[in-house]
Amino acid sequence: MSISANDPTRKTWLQVPENSDFPIQNIPFGVFLTRDDIITIGSRIGDTAIDLGALHQLGYFEGIPLTDDIFLQDTLNDFISDGKKTWRLVRNRIAEVFDANNAKLRDNEEHRQVVLFGLDEIEMQLPVQVGDYTDFYSSKEHATNVGTMFRDPENALLPNWLHIPVGYHGRSSSIIPSGIPVHRPQGQTKAKDADEPVFGPSQRVDFELEMAFITTDANHLGEPIPIDEAEDYIFGLVLFNDWSARDIQTWEYVPLGPFLAKNFASSISPWIVTLDALEPFRVESPKPVKKLLPYLQSSGKKSFDINLEVFVQPENGEETRVSKSNFRYMYWNMSQQLAHHTVNGCPVLSGDMMGSGTISGPTPDSYGSMLELSWKGEKPVKLKDGSERKFIEDNDTVIMRGYCQNGYRIGFGEVSTKLLPVFEPKKK
Amino acid sequence: MSISANDPTRKTWLQVPENSDFPIQNIPFGVFLTRDDIITIGSRIGDTAIDLGALHQLGYFEGIPLTDDIFLQDTLNDFISDGKKTWRLVRNRIAEVFDANNAKLRDNEEHRQVVLFGLDEIEMQLPVQVGDYTDFYSSKEHATNVGTMFRDPENALLPNWLHIPVGYHGRSSSIIPSGIPVHRPQGQTKAKDADEPVFGPSQRVDFELEMAFITTDANHLGEPIPIDEAEDYIFGLVLFNDWSARDIQTWEYVPLGPFLAKNFASSISPWIVTLDALEPFRVESPKPVKKLLPYLQSSGKKSFDINLEVFVQPENGEETRVSKSNFRYMYWNMSQQLAHHTVNGCPVLSGDMMGSGTISGPTPDSYGSMLELSWKGEKPVKLKDGSERKFIEDNDTVIMRGYCQNGYRIGFGEVSTKLLPVFEPKKK
Repeated sequence: MSISANDPTRKTWLQVPENSDFPIQNIPFGVFLTRDDIITIGSRIGDTAIDLGALHQLGYFEGIPLTDDIFLQDTLNDFISDGKKTWRLVRNRIAEVFDANNAKLRDNEEHRQVVLFGLDEIEMQLPVQVGDYTDFYSSKEHATNVGTMFRDPENALLPNWLHIPVGYHGRSSSIIPSGIPVHRPQGQTKAKDADEPVFGPSQRVDFELEMAFITTDANHLGEPIPIDEAEDYIFGLVLFNDWSARDIQTWEYVPLGPFLAKNFASSISPWIVTLDALEPFRVESPKPVKKLLPYLQSSGKKSFDINLEVFVQPENGEETRVSKSNFRYMYWNMSQQLAHHTVNGCPVLSGDMMGSGTISGPTPDSYGSMLELSWKGEKPVKLKDGSERKFIEDNDTVIMRGYCQNGYRIGFGEVSTKLLPVFEPKKK
Repeated sequence: MSISANDPTRKTWLQVPENSDFPIQNIPFGVFLTRDDIITIGSRIGDTAIDLGALHQLGYFEGIPLTDDIFLQDTLNDFISDGKKTWRLVRNRIAEVFDANNAKLRDNEEHRQVVLFGLDEIEMQLPVQVGDYTDFYSSKEHATNVGTMFRDPENALLPNWLHIPVGYHGRSSSIIPSGIPVHRPQGQTKAKDADEPVFGPSQRVDFELEMAFITTDANHLGEPIPIDEAEDYIFGLVLFNDWSARDIQTWEYVPLGPFLAKNFASSISPWIVTLDALEPFRVESPKPVKKLLPYLQSSGKKSFDINLEVFVQPENGEETRVSKSNFRYMYWNMSQQLAHHTVNGCPVLSGDMMGSGTISGPTPDSYGSMLELSWKGEKPVKLKDGSERKFIEDNDTVIMRGYCQNGYRIGFGEVSTKLLPVFEPKKK
């Protein structure tokens, strides 16, 4: 089936600001609360949010096999379960409805009233209920930087790294949408020369610049997904800030991996950009250094050219861009990650989320974490107001943005999260 | 509020086999499919399953604040969300309804017909939708055995182990109830002296004898749970077999922890035994070796005396008991685990599951995994049929049972799982 929604020549009757992340060729999916406190599934063109529940009730999806309440839900999980063919039909139809030459909704003010919202009239929610969240560690530059800093510069990559898209399980319950602030976590840390650990606020709160993909129901217990079919089960992507407390991590992570250093919060951008919308931005993945086992050998363009940026904004201050990276730097692509994740028969379901791991590029200004940008705090990062950052400070806001550009622009909007001071329990 | 359901003198009008795990003092909760293909929440006394949905519709829970459909659901999550006070009211009421002296249901054949089922008439389901599953590593004996085998016998415990109830995130999607078979997983492994990894069936499939507790909604993002309140958020416990592929684990787990070695399957017993039912079996926890940070200092009897057994049964063969352990051996108790898990503000929700980690006792016959029982395969375990096991073989069934005994017996039934050969995809 063709992806007519990607037609680069299509114009829309909605107003779209120049350089918008959301031209009519994007058509992402999200969940929002409307001015009437109704929760609905929606899309977005320019700065206009589209209530897909209302659009469906008014008959605009006629002929597409959808249940009546598919968009009147507080998560996208059921719609994602409907599968790629349905996603594509819906996205193509939305493109038609908002095509500059289609008068049906354009000229029906009554319908427009119930279907369209300004961004200031809605509140974005978490788009899916995340059943399981997995985080990979798939940037060679990031793994090399971390290995150089904490282990051995001569053998920065661990022996398994070039053979396995290393990953681990994360916590779903602390995944939050852009805009929800996070408290600085407390926990146990131990200084290198100390005999005993101490308890207190983390002194090394960091972001990790990642992207995450969201899956549909992919397999049953016991059945692997072949690598060539993996993309059939990927609905779309979001920007992902995998908040980290480096000092807690150092003390806790051997031998079973990061735990409290990560599970206090992970922030995502609220609009899921479909894999279909990213189709024009495919690129080759980096060439594997080692010969891969057959189940990990991927062919064709399975990486995506997505520009990524991180900004730090002190309270009441200006944003400073601290990193400029790209999703294409990932050594392991999403197909490899999903094939690996299921090769033992692990079931992947609708709404599962898989993080890429920190996406660091080859140059110091493209590193995806403060740990790397400030090199463990040895080279503080200068902000526009003259202040310096080794890690993130209380009341700083971390903003990540991402977009593809090639003729037209497909973007992700942003994930923006403020770090609040340590939580103070209310006096009883 | 008193736990009258625990009255040791109470007798029931239902038949209860001698030495049953489910006397009227137990009253566990589960989910089952009935002969009419209806899914319902239920309880069990002796070998009789009780349809709580039907019981509620017939008015037996009058006076308890419950929504009409609270038991007509395919998971216990919403009921667990109702909180400890409601669980206790319901459990006390069930005890009253089935009290030998209560004629109301006993003498109403019509009602009994729709409420009661033989065990052969029902099919047990997963009792909760597990949002997040965490596995701890809380047995000192197990951690010492593993450290001795794989690291350094002189420093078997890692430096953090006596300060932190070490834990990591697991995979929810592969948690299955007793009775569902599991395929031997395939994956990457690398022999010590090999240059490159190979792909194939795991040669070291193992069980891990654990218990898991199931929580209710406990806290909001950012808010820790004080250790003295932790038990308020624990609904109950199940037996837990944390299937493991030791050879896959060895190659993959540094630095981010176990992943595919664990997420192919984790099996649980289907009846959740409430913390209330376990009240008479409280015991002191082991004395901490190191002074704990205040947030981990627990007082009172926070451990439970639960006898645990593991059996291995070859196809068409007899069961051999291979391990006899006890939940009280855990160095870290559940309150410490939950306080630690949330000290950074990580939210814990209804239906979350927390595994204890392998429960090994002090003697070699009390070790909780084949890895330890056969000491890495150096001391094969003899079965009754004369065969030997280093690890679990195709078509073996692993059965775990657990019970408390002190005047009367409160048990968990069993978790029984057959290991099938590697999955063969159907020819297309």
